[in-house]
Amino acid sequence: MNMSLDIDSVLQKLKEILPGEKEFIGLHEPCFGGNEWAYVKECLDTGWVSSAGKYVEKFESMLAEYTGAQKAVAVVNGTAALHICLKLAGVDCGDEVIIPSLTFVATANAVMYCGAVPHFADVEESTLGLDPSKLADYLKEIAEKRDGICHNRLTGRAIKAVVPMHTFGHPVDLEPLLEVCRQFGLELVEDAAESLGSFYKGRHTGTFGRLSAISFNGNKTITTGGGGIILTNDEELAKKAKHMTTTAKVPHRWAFNHDMVGYNYRMPNLNAALGCAQMEQLPDFLRKKRDLAQKYQALFTGIHGVQVFREPAFAVSNYWLNALIIDEEFVAQRDELLEATNAVGIQTRPVWTLMHRLPMYHQCPRMNLSVSEKLEQRIINVPSSVIMCELK
Amino acid sequence: MNMSLDIDSVLQKLKEILPGEKEFIGLHEPCFGGNEWAYVKECLDTGWVSSAGKYVEKFESMLAEYTGAQKAVAVVNGTAALHICLKLAGVDCGDEVIIPSLTFVATANAVMYCGAVPHFADVEESTLGLDPSKLADYLKEIAEKRDGICHNRLTGRAIKAVVPMHTFGHPVDLEPLLEVCRQFGLELVEDAAESLGSFYKGRHTGTFGRLSAISFNGNKTITTGGGGIILTNDEELAKKAKHMTTTAKVPHRWAFNHDMVGYNYRMPNLNAALGCAQMEQLPDFLRKKRDLAQKYQALFTGIHGVQVFREPAFAVSNYWLNALIIDEEFVAQRDELLEATNAVGIQTRPVWTLMHRLPMYHQCPRMNLSVSEKLEQRIINVPSSVIMCELK
Ligand SMILES: Cc1ncc(COP(=O)(O)O)c(C=O)c1O
Ligand SMILES: Cc1ncc(COP(=O)(O)O)c(C=O)c1O
Repeated sequence: MNMSLDIDSVLQKLKEILPGEKEFIGLHEPCFGGNEWAYVKECLDTGWVSSAGKYVEKFESMLAEYTGAQKAVAVVNGTAALHICLKLAGVDCGDEVIIPSLTFVATANAVMYCGAVPHFADVEESTLGLDPSKLADYLKEIAEKRDGICHNRLTGRAIKAVVPMHTFGHPVDLEPLLEVCRQFGLELVEDAAESLGSFYKGRHTGTFGRLSAISFNGNKTITTGGGGIILTNDEELAKKAKHMTTTAKVPHRWAFNHDMVGYNYRMPNLNAALGCAQMEQLPDFLRKKRDLAQKYQALFTGIHGVQVFREPAFAVSNYWLNALIIDEEFVAQRDELLEATNAVGIQTRPVWTLMHRLPMYHQCPRMNLSVSEKLEQRIINVPSSVIMCELK
Repeated sequence: MNMSLDIDSVLQKLKEILPGEKEFIGLHEPCFGGNEWAYVKECLDTGWVSSAGKYVEKFESMLAEYTGAQKAVAVVNGTAALHICLKLAGVDCGDEVIIPSLTFVATANAVMYCGAVPHFADVEESTLGLDPSKLADYLKEIAEKRDGICHNRLTGRAIKAVVPMHTFGHPVDLEPLLEVCRQFGLELVEDAAESLGSFYKGRHTGTFGRLSAISFNGNKTITTGGGGIILTNDEELAKKAKHMTTTAKVPHRWAFNHDMVGYNYRMPNLNAALGCAQMEQLPDFLRKKRDLAQKYQALFTGIHGVQVFREPAFAVSNYWLNALIIDEEFVAQRDELLEATNAVGIQTRPVWTLMHRLPMYHQCPRMNLSVSEKLEQRIINVPSSVIMCELK
């Protein structure tokens, strides 16, 4: 048995997978190989660059069609999408919302924007996402339903929603999670920011919750520069989402009336034009990302002490970001590996610092987070761009 | 003396000013006649479309240089800019912020995003912006300074800031307003959303307050699709603004730590590229807009019952949106004029419904708003695009 992780071997495997000519290989770089320029140019030529324009609507239809969601509402980014999803799920000032501690900070921030409190739950090793059975046990212990609303008996606050996040694109185990939500009277809102192109038992992630949010940030599977979308099967909620994200203006030929506190969250047409061109290439991107993931899996098979994370059995994942999982006994070498890879221009990073360790979330309620805390030490993300496949 | 406004004459004058071939003449359409293509294409070619990228920084320098502000921080839109300005000016949950009732709804919404309460003040007819002497009298009556902080004696809440808005680009009388703020211990934050290119006594609007916000929405003097910028002369505040708008991530080669609740508010590089090209044309745009304003002024001189609004004596205005001011005795005909113009494809609109009439702001504190209430009936905005000058 090896007593330590062989950093050199890992480095060599990474070099084998990744194209050799480039001086810097980023974690996730966009690929513009389709109609991007044609569509963006059309926006400039017609003068339609702002939030009214045909590409916004086209992008929304493309997303609805691809994911199978009834409705899609395009917004400035995934964070804004999550904010509106939570508001529409009924999250109010002083409520609690269950989210994983292992997530990007936007999930927790969106809860705060509603004046609510994030309540951190643990994840399972097989999905890197919320653990439904651990959550069920925990809620049995600390929660009770009063007048149909779930309450935290310890804080007295209402718990309104559960927000699973599909980490690196890998679907959470949604069915048992939906069952827990049903049982406790909680809304399910999916943070599907990373999971465009990921399916759970044949259905696209983001179509199981009452609402969900996808991100098109520059580092995502497809990008609009900055952008996000709200998915829902509820036409009424979609209408409200559109209203709230366009300053809640009441339609009129000329009068400016607004009937609630709204937001300027609509996606500009310029960005949507980029998105339409990117969506056309999504199947191709996904194929290439799957190839790359398989290469990682094949080449790391022989390396002792580190596994490449694989999609759960019930899922087809987009493999947005590939992750190496270091064996527990070698976690002390994580930073050494990060140093070694970044030093040679291969960008790698650990997973996000757990939410409950951040100063502004340190006091928030949480369950035992032992699995998250272990995983935090073990995950290293490795370069996963679509272009990686094209160059080799 | 005429007993009524001669709608036909007004219509004829508008047709004289506006190019005849177009079926629809919008209020304010963008003009892309410079390096828009080149810069946007470069973003696509290099893959830099998201919030890191050289155009964002270039756009910020261009704005700082043009306005004379020490620092400029580019964000997703003017609303987001205002939100961050207010937070950085110290506006907290439960505070009050003085804003005009005559404004676009975003000014009030941004106050609400901070958990604060808008407190409505009146405007003066000569600027369409906050009336400094009416505000001073009012504050003498209802406010007192306790421990250096201004308090509303009626509500008990702290009043933290005053947010003048430069309506249609016409500068508010800033000097006396700054004096009122000094006297009562209030921060001045300028809503300069509409006033890029407008100067007060030789200095650019948005450089007088501690912070200010400009919008680059599709209908503004220059556009980035959607976009905004925060101006300030305080380097520390600029640093904080950048930090808060980039999820408050603490810089590190790989670790993801965030030290406060932040926002995803940075402007994407794609949009900034458009902005750089637009900024290069700003002097030309302003010249053309000034020409158009002069045409309006000249051609309407003979029309009884309606004036074209002119920049205040202390100001050079960008004339973002031209406004007809109907004489008080003819306000009953305002809607008739709106009907007649829009019916022939000349887009016109009244000013925004006053904030204190909107359902969500109806209960907010306010002073006597008699001037705003009269102006609300009298203002009609008329087409003001740069392209209007080019086509004639
Ligand atoms: C899990 C998660 N949630 C939310 C977001 C927010 O999306 P955006 O960056 O588009 O605001 C992201 C992406 O950055 C994310 O990874
Ligand atoms: C007075 C005023 N404030 C704020 C805004 C908000 O700017 P944006 O639309 O870019 O969010 C606007 C423009 O729409 C405005 O006219």
